Amino acid sequence: MKVETKNESCTIVSEEIENAIVLEGSPGLGLIGNIVGWLLVDDLKMREIGYIDSKYFPPLAVLYRGVAIHPFRIYEGEGLVLFLSDFILPSSVVYDMTNAMVKWMKRNNSKELITFNSVIVRQKSHLVAGAANSKDALKRLGKLDIPILPFGNINGISGTLLTRCAIENIPASCLFGEILTPYPDPRAAAEVVEVLNKMLGLEVDTEPLLEEAQAIESRLKKLAEKVHKTETPTTPTETPIYM
Amino acid sequence: MKVETKNESCTIVSEEIENAIVLEGSPGLGLIGNIVGWLLVDDLKMREIGYIDSKYFPPLAVLYRGVAIHPFRIYEGEGLVLFLSDFILPSSVVYDMTNAMVKWMKRNNSKELITFNSVIVRQKSHLVAGAANSKDALKRLGKLDIPILPFGNINGISGTLLTRCAIENIPASCLFGEILTPYPDPRAAAEVVEVLNKMLGLEVDTEPLLEEAQAIESRLKKLAEKVHKTETPTTPTETPIYM
Amino acid sequence: MKVETKNESCTIVSEEIENAIVLEGSPGLGLIGNIVGWLLVDDLKMREIGYIDSKYFPPLAVLYRGVAIHPFRIYEGEGLVLFLSDFILPSSVVYDMTNAMVKWMKRNNSKELITFNSVIVRQKSHLVAGAANSKDALKRLGKLDIPILPFGNINGISGTLLTRCAIENIPASCLFGEILTPYPDPRAAAEVVEVLNKMLGLEVDTEPLLEEAQAIESRLKKLAEKVHKTETPTTPTETPIYM
Amino acid sequence: MKVETKNESCTIVSEEIENAIVLEGSPGLGLIGNIVGWLLVDDLKMREIGYIDSKYFPPLAVLYRGVAIHPFRIYEGEGLVLFLSDFILPSSVVYDMTNAMVKWMKRNNSKELITFNSVIVRQKSHLVAGAANSKDALKRLGKLDIPILPFGNINGISGTLLTRCAIENIPASCLFGEILTPYPDPRAAAEVVEVLNKMLGLEVDTEPLLEEAQAIESRLKKLAEKVHKTETPTTPTETPIYM
Amino acid sequence: MKVETKNESCTIVSEEIENAIVLEGSPGLGLIGNIVGWLLVDDLKMREIGYIDSKYFPPLAVLYRGVAIHPFRIYEGEGLVLFLSDFILPSSVVYDMTNAMVKWMKRNNSKELITFNSVIVRQKSHLVAGAANSKDALKRLGKLDIPILPFGNINGISGTLLTRCAIENIPASCLFGEILTPYPDPRAAAEVVEVLNKMLGLEVDTEPLLEEAQAIESRLKKLAEKVHKTETPTTPTETPIYM
Repeated sequence: MKVETKNESCTIVSEEIENAIVLEGSPGLGLIGNIVGWLLVDDLKMREIGYIDSKYFPPLAVLYRGVAIHPFRIYEGEGLVLFLSDFILPSSVVYDMTNAMVKWMKRNNSKELITFNSVIVRQKSHLVAGAANSKDALKRLGKLDIPILPFGNINGISGTLLTRCAIENIPASCLFGEILTPYPDPRAAAEVVEVLNKMLGLEVDTEPLLEEAQAIESRLKKLAEKVHKTETPTTPTETPIYM
Repeated sequence: MKVETKNESCTIVSEEIENAIVLEGSPGLGLIGNIVGWLLVDDLKMREIGYIDSKYFPPLAVLYRGVAIHPFRIYEGEGLVLFLSDFILPSSVVYDMTNAMVKWMKRNNSKELITFNSVIVRQKSHLVAGAANSKDALKRLGKLDIPILPFGNINGISGTLLTRCAIENIPASCLFGEILTPYPDPRAAAEVVEVLNKMLGLEVDTEPLLEEAQAIESRLKKLAEKVHKTETPTTPTETPIYM
Repeated sequence: MKVETKNESCTIVSEEIENAIVLEGSPGLGLIGNIVGWLLVDDLKMREIGYIDSKYFPPLAVLYRGVAIHPFRIYEGEGLVLFLSDFILPSSVVYDMTNAMVKWMKRNNSKELITFNSVIVRQKSHLVAGAANSKDALKRLGKLDIPILPFGNINGISGTLLTRCAIENIPASCLFGEILTPYPDPRAAAEVVEVLNKMLGLEVDTEPLLEEAQAIESRLKKLAEKVHKTETPTTPTETPIYM
Repeated sequence: MKVETKNESCTIVSEEIENAIVLEGSPGLGLIGNIVGWLLVDDLKMREIGYIDSKYFPPLAVLYRGVAIHPFRIYEGEGLVLFLSDFILPSSVVYDMTNAMVKWMKRNNSKELITFNSVIVRQKSHLVAGAANSKDALKRLGKLDIPILPFGNINGISGTLLTRCAIENIPASCLFGEILTPYPDPRAAAEVVEVLNKMLGLEVDTEPLLEEAQAIESRLKKLAEKVHKTETPTTPTETPIYM
Repeated sequence: MKVETKNESCTIVSEEIENAIVLEGSPGLGLIGNIVGWLLVDDLKMREIGYIDSKYFPPLAVLYRGVAIHPFRIYEGEGLVLFLSDFILPSSVVYDMTNAMVKWMKRNNSKELITFNSVIVRQKSHLVAGAANSKDALKRLGKLDIPILPFGNINGISGTLLTRCAIENIPASCLFGEILTPYPDPRAAAEVVEVLNKMLGLEVDTEPLLEEAQAIESRLKKLAEKVHKTETPTTPTETPIYM
């Protein structure tokens, strides 16, 4: 049975899943959270249990194997609950959205929150870094052999979830994939998944992301060669891939 | 008798037509939905049964044979109901508009929804593609010998209608005309109508669209030749065509 | 006695004039409606009977012979009521403004509405064109020996007045002056007045507009010659004309 | 005792001064109203009696001899009340602000309103022009030997005060200083003060403004010479003058 | 125990600290207030006692030694209370925020307010200047051997706090660090802290700021040399420093 968690800007329409570890993946630089989320759904065969609705979201449906689905969905599986969005949340909604999600977690006695983000670096070195919303939560990250991001800002829903969870005493942490550019980076997402595997004792296979990365890289390489030889079209368009 | 379906942003003022198949045509890239809609009205001699009103619409009237009409009208005929708009809906209205339309469909026990859209391609190949809002709805499209658009985003009211209908268990599908540029493409609209004919057992004649396409293409060709020979005026204006 | 016709965005403060023919002149391309309106006020010695007030109007007063007057005024005379504004209405107010005006007309049993607009052409041919809000209203225009504008959009309050009057069964028509540029065109306004004279059996003298047109044209000609000879100032300013 | 005059957007917090002549000086092109206002405060040793507060004002304090003061203040002295602001009022507040001021004037039985503005000219000739909100008010200006500005728009709070006072039968006039550029012009402000002296029988000394004007002109002259000789800095900054 | 001080736009959630001297440090040109605030927290080992929450703040968390903290925090220590923010307050929130802070101060009987700001100069001379919200408050600054900024505008929350405190009879002053550019200037912040030490009888060590300044200056010098020799990268990215 679906339950509504409502406030001024948005409504969570979802089944209640108690005692879960909650993951949040929304698009950001490198698209890390979104790529990680889609892989988890596929690999862990997670079940869609609801969605978030808001009149302040951009008008949009997402196609998945030809079927239009909500752009912000909620999944569950293996004791995890995943909030997965396919669009960048308008800043003005983030505050209320965060409140609704934390209210949901509180009511469902969620164990902890893990959110995904990225950090732009000049050269990849540690691949994944972490941060948390309390010293205790930070200690746990320390055991994962990843560096801690000591200073800086965490923008978007990642940031507000960390502080809002702190107020409600829900341990929360953030994994940052190192990226070189703002473009989608499945390889960085794969590294984040490897850390998540260690954190949660999962065995999610990152092979699909590495293949995707290779495909992107090879496409870019070919494009670069082509650009060298010929003139690029001024308005390149995308040929759709049909099923 | 006209009935009002009202919410915060808009009001549907329309007769009640029960058990209809609902079509939605609004302007988008290639103007597909709008061109298809106008052809259906003419060919099927559909009757205007209402309009949608909103203080958030741009101030605008549309001329039809010298008579000013509402920019968002509702027609019926041959068991079909058509929502036809002549302007791009402001994003902020789409949410409430979608809710009002789905409420209308629910109350009038509408059988299904078909919306029109476009997909920009480098080269036209399949001419028309499809998507739906459930696996069942998708199966039906499979019988039409058109490819399914597996991934991607559906923007605008097309997208939100698909997901909102899914929540209310109304089968819905979207037909995408392949276009090369964002400009009006009556030829692509004609292809969409051919598929619609097959889907609904109609015999709408697409000849007018093909003629229009030819006229546009010949005009563009002449313009290109002219541009070759002479200087183009810096502020080209449109000579109106009088009745 | 002045009566208030009020809604969320604006208030009409005006005397009640029953059974009038209502004219609406607001600035648009070519400034047709506004120029026509000012001429009617002068020629027909119309009396100011009210104004429209809105917190959404730009802060502005208009000087008339040294006296500051409301930027949106209402006049009456010879069985006519004229709504005359000297600024472009913000889009967001047009909906409520139209509703207030139509409510006023309904209550005062107004006979019909005539609004003024313009159509940009490459070359002036018919000088004035028309459109209406019903087939009956259109027939009347047919007797005036002016062409009917069959297709296109009517933007602004002209457009919404036509459709809103249609809902309330008030016959309404729009006269479009042909213009070559978006700049003020008193000659085109004069042509519109000639048609209006025929429509309403008036004898408004358009001479002042033709003089004004000549003055503008001669000024532009001189300017063109001057530009030929010397350098134009980069920030040309306007010398005010004192009484 | 201070009294609040409140509406949706702003609150006047001020002592009540009855039967006063009310002056309004806010910054505009040439900064005329603001310069005139500051001179009156100094010369007439006017007493601060209140301020206007609004959440829609820009966040701002003004320093006066090292003390932070409200950016919109009210002063009184010699039977005058002066509304003086040091920032450009956001358009959206002008409507409510005007209503609050006129309400204050009505309640305090103010005798008349005088507001200050500017008119850009190619060449200064009459130095100051006038306009009013009724034929009677205009007559009085006629005695001052200044030309009347017959046509044109009065933007900002000057304009709305004139028409709003007309509705409430408060005589109001506007003095326009002639300016050549939009930059602060103390010399033009001095001319306006001379006319005001004649109007109200005051003897405000304009010498400080003429000195200021001379200082600005001499600074500009030096700058021009310097520009001739050397390269200008790309981001010129202002050295603050300490007490 | 934390108490809420709430209004339309924001909520202060904080312990009550009575009879404190309140400091306010928010980022502005030169980042003076923010740099001073962070140094005070570290040097005086101030304790976090609350935060300010608003749906109008940008979605953001700040990392401090790997732990996500609120972007607007409140600290106390040594009889001081510090309001410290790490982002530029949206103008639209400043009014309500100021009201909430002054309400908090009033209720907690705060002794005085000191806010930090900057003044751009061509050449640093006096290093720190001051202003206050009353003649009495100004006298106190006079004893500090710093110049008083006589005229000008104080933007942002600094400015509104000064005038709002004046209304509530809370003495308030502002210290301005002289800066040459809008970039972070720890050296200027150090000078402000030296004045604050004198004002409040503190012994805050500014050495960390001077080291930071030296680091920045040496980095800039190296960058300048590098730029001289080689081409600069078009999109320089920041390597994160791990703990």
